[in-house]
Amino acid sequence: MNLLDILHSELNPVPVSQEIVPLIEAGGRVVSEDIRARIPLPSYDQSSRDGFALASLSEMGASYRLLEFEAFAGNSETISLRAGEACAVMTGGLIPLGASRVVPKEHCAPMADTLQLDLAAMGLPPFIQRVGEEVGLHEIIIKRGELVQAEDLGLLASTGNGQIPVYRRPRVGFFATGTELLELGQAPVAGMKFASNHYMLAELCSLYGSEGHNMGRVSDRGEVLTKLFSEIVEGDLDLVISTGGMGPGRYDLLEESFVAAGGRLVVNSLPMLPGRSTLVGWLGTTLFYGLPGTPRAIRPLFTELISRSLLAMQGLLENAPVQIEARLIRDCRLRRADVPSLQGGKLSYQDGRVWVERVARTGSPDCFMLVPAGSDCLEANSSVRVHLTRSPFSR
Amino acid sequence: MNLLDILHSELNPVPVSQEIVPLIEAGGRVVSEDIRARIPLPSYDQSSRDGFALASLSEMGASYRLLEFEAFAGNSETISLRAGEACAVMTGGLIPLGASRVVPKEHCAPMADTLQLDLAAMGLPPFIQRVGEEVGLHEIIIKRGELVQAEDLGLLASTGNGQIPVYRRPRVGFFATGTELLELGQAPVAGMKFASNHYMLAELCSLYGSEGHNMGRVSDRGEVLTKLFSEIVEGDLDLVISTGGMGPGRYDLLEESFVAAGGRLVVNSLPMLPGRSTLVGWLGTTLFYGLPGTPRAIRPLFTELISRSLLAMQGLLENAPVQIEARLIRDCRLRRADVPSLQGGKLSYQDGRVWVERVARTGSPDCFMLVPAGSDCLEANSSVRVHLTRSPFSR
Repeated sequence: MNLLDILHSELNPVPVSQEIVPLIEAGGRVVSEDIRARIPLPSYDQSSRDGFALASLSEMGASYRLLEFEAFAGNSETISLRAGEACAVMTGGLIPLGASRVVPKEHCAPMADTLQLDLAAMGLPPFIQRVGEEVGLHEIIIKRGELVQAEDLGLLASTGNGQIPVYRRPRVGFFATGTELLELGQAPVAGMKFASNHYMLAELCSLYGSEGHNMGRVSDRGEVLTKLFSEIVEGDLDLVISTGGMGPGRYDLLEESFVAAGGRLVVNSLPMLPGRSTLVGWLGTTLFYGLPGTPRAIRPLFTELISRSLLAMQGLLENAPVQIEARLIRDCRLRRADVPSLQGGKLSYQDGRVWVERVARTGSPDCFMLVPAGSDCLEANSSVRVHLTRSPFSR
Repeated sequence: MNLLDILHSELNPVPVSQEIVPLIEAGGRVVSEDIRARIPLPSYDQSSRDGFALASLSEMGASYRLLEFEAFAGNSETISLRAGEACAVMTGGLIPLGASRVVPKEHCAPMADTLQLDLAAMGLPPFIQRVGEEVGLHEIIIKRGELVQAEDLGLLASTGNGQIPVYRRPRVGFFATGTELLELGQAPVAGMKFASNHYMLAELCSLYGSEGHNMGRVSDRGEVLTKLFSEIVEGDLDLVISTGGMGPGRYDLLEESFVAAGGRLVVNSLPMLPGRSTLVGWLGTTLFYGLPGTPRAIRPLFTELISRSLLAMQGLLENAPVQIEARLIRDCRLRRADVPSLQGGKLSYQDGRVWVERVARTGSPDCFMLVPAGSDCLEANSSVRVHLTRSPFSR
């Protein structure tokens, strides 16, 4: 949906500040500088087999004088082999000075101070991994703007990187407007509902690498909202989300209060479903999203819009949703044909193809179908563009 | 790879104990009992539009006596309408007793104590959501063995579920064997390496919903290992992973020590790559995986074997990896043709199809190709089975 790309580039959120974290906390963070190998891999010439290291004469012989020394893994002592000498070596062991190759032990017959090799040993590779063969000194391990994944953690440790510069996690506040909200634990009352959106938003913030802060419920009164918005302008949140209070009703004073507090409006409606009642703008340096109150609108708008802002704020260079083509398993009827819409979908895979169907009302989507305006029914077997809902922070 | 399914069913890990968590901590947990709606949704008859509620005569008229009362959202007071009466109502507001429909305000002309409707109002639906229309009282919201996702959190809150029974997170210990390991921060020494696997394992445990505990480095001495294994038998860890010490070398005493401590061996090698040096068994009620030391073997074995045990221990009913068919983007040469292998892959999507290529040596796979024995090269464009690496805990 080009519309969302345009809005994203118009907002152009920039990475928040950086911090240094110990490696054990770096998983799932975005690095803020290229990180290079502080030591090469391997960091010393090492054996890739259990066997014997040899110092060959100009041509490889079949018999060597066997020294008592053993280059086991973890032995940092070493020796020098002279031509015609050999010693035991283990996988990962430090190759003695003067050694030109390792012969795996299945080709060796060690006897007292002599080592005999079998004929097959002659044609084998040297089984020595040289310094830096895997990763060179100062080679880049992970680039600025990339996410630290499980494999990266291992590689960062092996190359001596214990302190990792990363972008700070964005601080996200969210509040619900409305006087009709009860807290869980209160007795149910006709005309009122349990506040539920903050549970969903807390989880979504965390899935997208951010710190969620529940700012609670705010009454639908203009002066209360304006005061809150003014506090947000002065505060240090990176992004704020409100739910509810965006419809056409006369209790819906959100936009008025936003403007009254000095908010800079970017859009107050999106020509898509959901999205008609959606305010996007800036409160000082805090990005603000005013969403409708219904979870069925919040989830797609979070996934398509807010998540992308959060990823950009964390400096993640690849922050666009993964878009793929899928075929519809069955007909998909639409409520309205005059505007584009996002429809929650479930993917499946068959015959090397990707299939999609609309997710049930209470189900959890794993993608959103991008449905263009102009049709009130998408037919089974037709192709539709979908965005994966998967957070790049999840593996 | 049928082999791994067989091993998994042979191990048959069972869910660990249960606990009750507050809803705000329930995201990403597996519920241990069916959870039902404690209140229906909506919990009262509510308006789905801003407009006016009418108590019609036997036929709907065009003019009504307008009362002063207003059923705004959050107003738990209500009134009774008699035939021919109307009152204002807002979206989400409690429908007054006696009201038979809501007419959206764009079809209404309220004047002092009279409400006039336009002609179009006659053909409209009633715009009343009845109690339980969305979710019935005691309807199941989420089943035992299912994961709590963002949408579920909202629905659980709305239906009055503040305390959620979930399976406990498995406790996973991991240690590295070997005397050649240094800790980050120590000065590099030829012949020794920085311990790195525990960083990767901590991250992988967390991605699969488990608590990782680094048990540190353990020397390659038999009596030390046997003592550690005996402690594990007595301890309360659900699963333990060791890395290293599984090769054919004579310092590799892991299996001997495992058996000496009373370990029940299930397999000590898998006929696949990686997997030859892999010990699986039980230390009392603790599941034990002895893996080789190289990250390139650890990641696929974790994803294909250990993760599945962890998911089963959390009671997740759908714990098998998602398997799909993909086409190779380019030829994939294999080091050995005589055993099946797992090859890390990167997926892409084009023309409605799923494509895969082998991941670069230092890259992070998003799938593993299941390569059967018998060929030393898979050709471009041929079809290959892959398992997605994605944890079900990630969205």
